[in-house]
Amino acid sequence: MFKLDPRIEKDSIFVKELPLCQLRLQNDSRYPWFVLLPRVNELTEVHQLSEHEQMQLMKESALVSKALTATTQCKKINVANLGNVVAQLHWHVVARFEHDQTWPGPIWGIGASIAWQDQKRAEFIDSFLENLSQLSQFK
Amino acid sequence: MFKLDPRIEKDSIFVKELPLCQLRLQNDSRYPWFVLLPRVNELTEVHQLSEHEQMQLMKESALVSKALTATTQCKKINVANLGNVVAQLHWHVVARFEHDQTWPGPIWGIGASIAWQDQKRAEFIDSFLENLSQLSQFK
Repeated sequence: MFKLDPRIEKDSIFVKELPLCQLRLQNDSRYPWFVLLPRVNELTEVHQLSEHEQMQLMKESALVSKALTATTQCKKINVANLGNVVAQLHWHVVARFEHDQTWPGPIWGIGASIAWQDQKRAEFIDSFLENLSQLSQFK
Repeated sequence: MFKLDPRIEKDSIFVKELPLCQLRLQNDSRYPWFVLLPRVNELTEVHQLSEHEQMQLMKESALVSKALTATTQCKKINVANLGNVVAQLHWHVVARFEHDQTWPGPIWGIGASIAWQDQKRAEFIDSFLENLSQLSQFK
Protein backbone atom coordinates (compact mmCIF):
# COMPACT_ATOMS: atom_id res chain seq x y z
CA MET A 1 0.00 0.00 0.00
CA PHE A 2 1.25 3.45 -0.95
CA LYS A 3 2.49 5.49 2.03
CA LEU A 4 2.69 9.26 1.99
CA ASP A 5 5.47 11.07 3.83
CA PRO A 6 3.89 12.94 6.80
CA ARG A 7 5.49 16.26 5.83
CA ILE A 8 4.16 16.06 2.25
CA GLU A 9 0.74 15.11 3.63
CA LYS A 10 0.74 18.13 5.95
CA ASP A 11 2.01 20.63 3.38
CA SER A 12 -0.21 19.68 0.44
CA ILE A 13 -3.79 18.81 -0.52
CA PHE A 14 -5.00 15.75 -2.44
CA VAL A 15 -6.26 16.63 -5.94
CA LYS A 16 -6.51 13.46 -8.04
CA GLU A 17 -5.04 10.03 -8.73
CA LEU A 18 -3.32 9.86 -12.12
CA PRO A 19 -2.30 6.47 -13.58
CA LEU A 20 1.14 6.52 -11.90
CA CYS A 21 1.10 9.46 -9.50
CA GLN A 22 -0.95 10.97 -6.75
CA LEU A 23 -1.41 14.62 -7.70
CA ARG A 24 -1.37 17.10 -4.81
CA LEU A 25 -1.48 20.89 -4.59
CA GLN A 26 1.19 22.44 -2.38
CA ASN A 27 -0.63 24.55 0.22
CA ASP A 28 1.28 27.71 -0.64
CA SER A 29 -0.72 30.34 -2.48
CA ARG A 30 2.45 32.27 -3.42
CA TYR A 31 2.84 29.82 -6.33
CA PRO A 32 0.43 27.58 -8.24
CA TRP A 33 2.45 24.49 -7.39
CA PHE A 34 1.65 20.80 -7.83
CA VAL A 35 3.51 17.78 -6.50
CA LEU A 36 3.32 14.43 -8.30
CA LEU A 37 4.01 11.37 -6.14
CA PRO A 38 4.61 8.09 -7.99
CA ARG A 39 2.73 5.41 -6.03
CA VAL A 40 5.84 3.36 -5.37
CA ASN A 41 7.37 2.97 -1.95
CA GLU A 42 10.98 3.31 -0.81
CA LEU A 43 12.32 5.00 -3.95
CA THR A 44 14.04 8.37 -3.82
CA GLU A 45 15.34 8.95 -7.37
CA VAL A 46 13.58 9.26 -10.74
CA HIS A 47 16.15 6.93 -12.31
CA GLN A 48 15.18 4.20 -9.81
CA LEU A 49 11.74 3.96 -11.42
CA SER A 50 11.31 1.36 -14.16
CA GLU A 51 11.68 2.71 -17.68
CA HIS A 52 7.92 2.41 -18.15
CA GLU A 53 7.30 4.38 -14.94
CA GLN A 54 9.80 7.05 -16.00
CA MET A 55 7.93 7.50 -19.29
CA GLN A 56 4.60 7.66 -17.45
CA LEU A 57 5.95 10.26 -15.00
CA MET A 58 7.08 12.37 -17.95
CA LYS A 59 3.63 12.07 -19.57
CA GLU A 60 1.85 13.08 -16.38
CA SER A 61 4.31 15.94 -15.77
CA ALA A 62 3.73 17.28 -19.31
CA LEU A 63 -0.03 17.01 -18.95
CA VAL A 64 -0.06 18.82 -15.60
CA SER A 65 2.33 21.44 -17.03
CA LYS A 66 0.02 22.11 -19.98
CA ALA A 67 -3.11 22.31 -17.84
CA LEU A 68 -1.35 24.57 -15.33
CA THR A 69 -0.18 26.87 -18.15
CA ALA A 70 -3.71 27.03 -19.56
CA THR A 71 -5.10 27.81 -16.10
CA THR A 72 -2.60 30.45 -15.03
CA GLN A 73 -1.11 31.93 -18.24
CA CYS A 74 2.22 31.71 -16.40
CA LYS A 75 5.53 32.94 -17.79
CA LYS A 76 7.40 29.65 -17.20
CA ILE A 77 6.89 26.16 -15.81
CA ASN A 78 9.54 24.83 -13.42
CA VAL A 79 9.77 21.05 -13.07
CA ALA A 80 12.12 19.31 -10.66
CA ASN A 81 12.94 16.40 -8.44
CA LEU A 82 15.12 17.64 -5.60
CA GLY A 83 14.23 15.59 -2.51
CA ASN A 84 17.10 16.79 -0.38
CA VAL A 85 14.78 17.46 2.58
CA VAL A 86 11.93 14.94 2.12
CA ALA A 87 13.31 11.69 0.77
CA GLN A 88 10.08 10.25 -0.70
CA LEU A 89 10.22 10.53 -4.48
CA HIS A 90 8.22 13.58 -5.51
CA TRP A 91 8.12 15.73 -8.62
CA HIS A 92 7.40 19.47 -8.59
CA VAL A 93 5.46 21.28 -11.32
CA VAL A 94 5.34 25.00 -10.55
CA ALA A 95 3.90 27.98 -12.43
CA ARG A 96 6.25 30.97 -12.33
CA PHE A 97 5.58 34.65 -12.95
CA GLU A 98 7.89 37.63 -13.30
CA HIS A 99 6.09 39.20 -10.36
CA ASP A 100 6.36 36.20 -8.00
CA GLN A 101 8.30 36.39 -4.76
CA THR A 102 11.53 34.71 -5.81
CA TRP A 103 11.60 35.19 -9.61
CA PRO A 104 13.89 34.41 -11.39
CA GLY A 105 15.42 32.27 -8.63
CA PRO A 106 14.11 28.88 -7.53
CA ILE A 107 11.21 28.75 -5.09
CA TRP A 108 12.33 26.10 -2.64
CA GLY A 109 13.32 26.94 0.92
CA ILE A 110 12.80 30.69 0.61
CA GLY A 111 10.30 32.58 2.78
CA ALA A 112 7.28 31.16 4.56
CA SER A 113 4.41 29.50 2.75
CA ILE A 114 1.01 31.26 2.71
CA ALA A 115 -1.89 28.82 2.88
CA TRP A 116 -4.56 29.02 0.18
CA GLN A 117 -7.92 30.50 1.18
CA ASP A 118 -10.54 27.74 0.86
CA GLN A 119 -12.69 29.46 -1.75
CA LYS A 120 -9.76 30.51 -3.95
CA ARG A 121 -8.21 27.07 -3.72
CA ALA A 122 -11.46 25.37 -4.72
CA GLU A 123 -11.88 27.72 -7.70
CA PHE A 124 -8.28 27.18 -8.78
CA ILE A 125 -8.51 23.39 -8.57
CA ASP A 126 -11.84 23.37 -10.44
CA SER A 127 -10.39 25.46 -13.24
CA PHE A 128 -7.23 23.34 -13.39
CA LEU A 129 -9.17 20.06 -13.48
CA GLU A 130 -11.37 21.38 -16.26
CA ASN A 131 -8.25 22.15 -18.32
CA LEU A 132 -6.71 18.80 -17.41
CA SER A 133 -9.78 16.89 -18.54
CA GLN A 134 -9.85 18.74 -21.85
CA LEU A 135 -6.22 17.80 -22.46
CA SER A 136 -6.25 14.21 -21.35
CA GLN A 137 -7.83 10.85 -21.09
CA PHE A 138 -7.72 11.09 -17.29
CA LYS A 139 -11.35 12.21 -17.02
CA MET B 1 21.19 24.04 -37.23
CA PHE B 2 21.20 23.83 -33.43
CA LYS B 3 22.09 27.12 -31.75
CA LEU B 4 23.48 27.33 -28.25
CA ASP B 5 22.58 30.23 -25.97
CA PRO B 6 25.76 32.35 -25.47
CA ARG B 7 25.46 32.26 -21.67
CA ILE B 8 25.17 28.46 -21.59
CA GLU B 9 28.14 28.25 -23.97
CA LYS B 10 30.25 30.48 -21.71
CA ASP B 11 29.27 28.78 -18.44
CA SER B 12 29.68 25.14 -19.51
CA ILE B 13 31.94 22.75 -21.39
CA PHE B 14 31.00 20.37 -24.20
CA VAL B 15 31.14 16.71 -23.14
CA LYS B 16 29.26 14.56 -25.66
CA GLU B 17 26.37 14.41 -28.11
CA LEU B 18 23.64 12.05 -26.95
CA PRO B 19 20.83 11.00 -29.35
CA LEU B 20 18.62 13.95 -28.41
CA CYS B 21 20.72 16.24 -26.25
CA GLN B 22 24.05 17.94 -26.19
CA LEU B 23 25.62 17.04 -22.84
CA ARG B 24 27.65 19.80 -21.18
CA LEU B 25 29.41 20.10 -17.81
CA GLN B 26 28.62 23.29 -15.90
CA ASN B 27 31.96 24.98 -15.18
CA ASP B 28 31.36 25.12 -11.45
CA SER B 29 33.47 22.73 -9.40
CA ARG B 30 31.29 23.27 -6.30
CA TYR B 31 28.89 20.70 -7.78
CA PRO B 32 29.27 17.86 -10.30
CA TRP B 33 26.61 19.35 -12.56
CA PHE B 34 25.58 18.46 -16.09
CA VAL B 35 23.27 20.33 -18.44
CA LEU B 36 21.37 18.46 -21.19
CA LEU B 37 20.30 20.57 -24.16
CA PRO B 38 17.78 19.01 -26.54
CA ARG B 39 18.93 19.89 -30.07
CA VAL B 40 15.71 21.69 -30.91
CA ASN B 41 15.52 25.43 -31.44
CA GLU B 42 13.07 27.98 -30.06
CA LEU B 43 11.52 25.74 -27.38
CA THR B 44 11.54 26.72 -23.73
CA GLU B 45 9.40 24.07 -21.99
CA VAL B 46 9.77 20.30 -21.65
CA HIS B 47 6.09 19.84 -22.51
CA GLN B 48 6.66 21.59 -25.86
CA LEU B 49 8.85 18.68 -26.99
CA SER B 50 7.14 15.90 -28.94
CA GLU B 51 6.11 12.92 -26.85
CA HIS B 52 8.96 10.91 -28.38
CA GLU B 53 11.46 13.66 -27.49
CA GLN B 54 10.11 13.85 -23.93
CA MET B 55 10.66 10.10 -23.52
CA GLN B 56 14.18 10.39 -24.97
CA LEU B 57 15.01 13.29 -22.63
CA MET B 58 13.88 11.16 -19.69
CA LYS B 59 16.04 8.25 -20.87
CA GLU B 60 19.11 10.44 -21.26
CA SER B 61 18.47 12.14 -17.91
CA ALA B 62 18.22 8.75 -16.17
CA LEU B 63 21.37 7.49 -17.85
CA VAL B 64 23.37 10.61 -16.91
CA SER B 65 21.94 10.40 -13.35
CA LYS B 66 23.08 6.80 -12.97
CA ALA B 67 26.56 7.44 -14.38
CA LEU B 68 26.93 10.55 -12.20
CA THR B 69 25.88 8.58 -9.11
CA ALA B 70 28.39 5.83 -9.94
CA THR B 71 31.13 8.43 -10.46
CA THR B 72 30.54 10.56 -7.37
CA GLN B 73 28.74 8.34 -4.82
CA CYS B 74 26.53 11.37 -4.19
CA LYS B 75 23.79 11.54 -1.58
CA LYS B 76 21.06 12.72 -4.04
CA ILE B 77 20.55 13.61 -7.67
CA ASN B 78 18.65 16.83 -8.41
CA VAL B 79 17.01 17.09 -11.84
CA ALA B 80 15.21 20.18 -13.08
CA ASN B 81 14.12 22.41 -15.88
CA LEU B 82 13.85 25.95 -14.55
CA GLY B 83 14.85 28.30 -17.39
CA ASN B 84 13.73 31.49 -15.69
CA VAL B 85 17.02 33.22 -16.54
CA VAL B 86 18.19 31.52 -19.76
CA ALA B 87 15.19 30.73 -21.94
CA GLN B 88 16.74 27.99 -24.12
CA LEU B 89 15.37 24.64 -23.02
CA HIS B 90 17.94 22.99 -20.76
CA TRP B 91 17.79 20.23 -18.19
CA HIS B 92 19.96 20.10 -15.08
CA VAL B 93 21.34 16.90 -13.55
CA VAL B 94 23.28 17.70 -10.39
CA ALA B 95 25.03 15.52 -7.81
CA ARG B 96 24.33 16.71 -4.27
CA PHE B 97 26.20 16.02 -1.03
CA GLU B 98 25.40 16.77 2.59
CA HIS B 99 28.63 18.77 2.76
CA ASP B 100 28.01 20.89 -0.35
CA GLN B 101 27.64 24.66 -0.15
CA THR B 102 23.86 24.97 -0.31
CA TRP B 103 22.64 21.57 0.96
CA PRO B 104 19.73 20.88 1.43
CA GLY B 105 18.58 23.92 -0.53
CA PRO B 106 18.66 24.25 -4.31
CA ILE B 107 21.92 25.25 -5.99
CA TRP B 108 20.75 27.84 -8.50
CA GLY B 109 21.59 31.51 -8.11
CA ILE B 110 23.47 31.18 -4.82
CA GLY B 111 27.11 32.20 -4.45
CA ALA B 112 29.70 32.49 -7.21
CA SER B 113 30.74 29.57 -9.37
CA ILE B 114 34.28 28.20 -8.99
CA ALA B 115 35.76 27.05 -12.31
CA TRP B 116 37.09 23.50 -12.54
CA GLN B 117 40.88 23.05 -12.60
CA ASP B 118 41.80 21.55 -15.99
CA GLN B 119 43.36 18.38 -14.67
CA LYS B 120 40.55 17.65 -12.20
CA ARG B 121 37.91 18.35 -14.81
CA ALA B 122 39.55 16.01 -17.33
CA GLU B 123 39.79 13.24 -14.72
CA PHE B 124 36.18 13.74 -13.68
CA ILE B 125 34.87 13.67 -17.26
CA ASP B 126 36.97 10.58 -18.10
CA SER B 127 35.61 8.73 -15.09
CA PHE B 128 32.03 9.83 -15.83
CA LEU B 129 32.24 8.79 -19.51
CA GLU B 130 33.62 5.40 -18.52
CA ASN B 131 30.59 4.86 -16.26
CA LEU B 132 28.25 6.19 -18.94
CA SER B 133 29.60 3.81 -21.55
CA GLN B 134 29.24 0.85 -19.21
CA LEU B 135 25.59 1.76 -18.62
CA SER B 136 24.52 2.61 -22.12
CA GLN B 137 24.48 2.06 -25.80
CA PHE B 138 25.92 5.55 -26.38
CA LYS B 139 29.48 4.23 -26.73
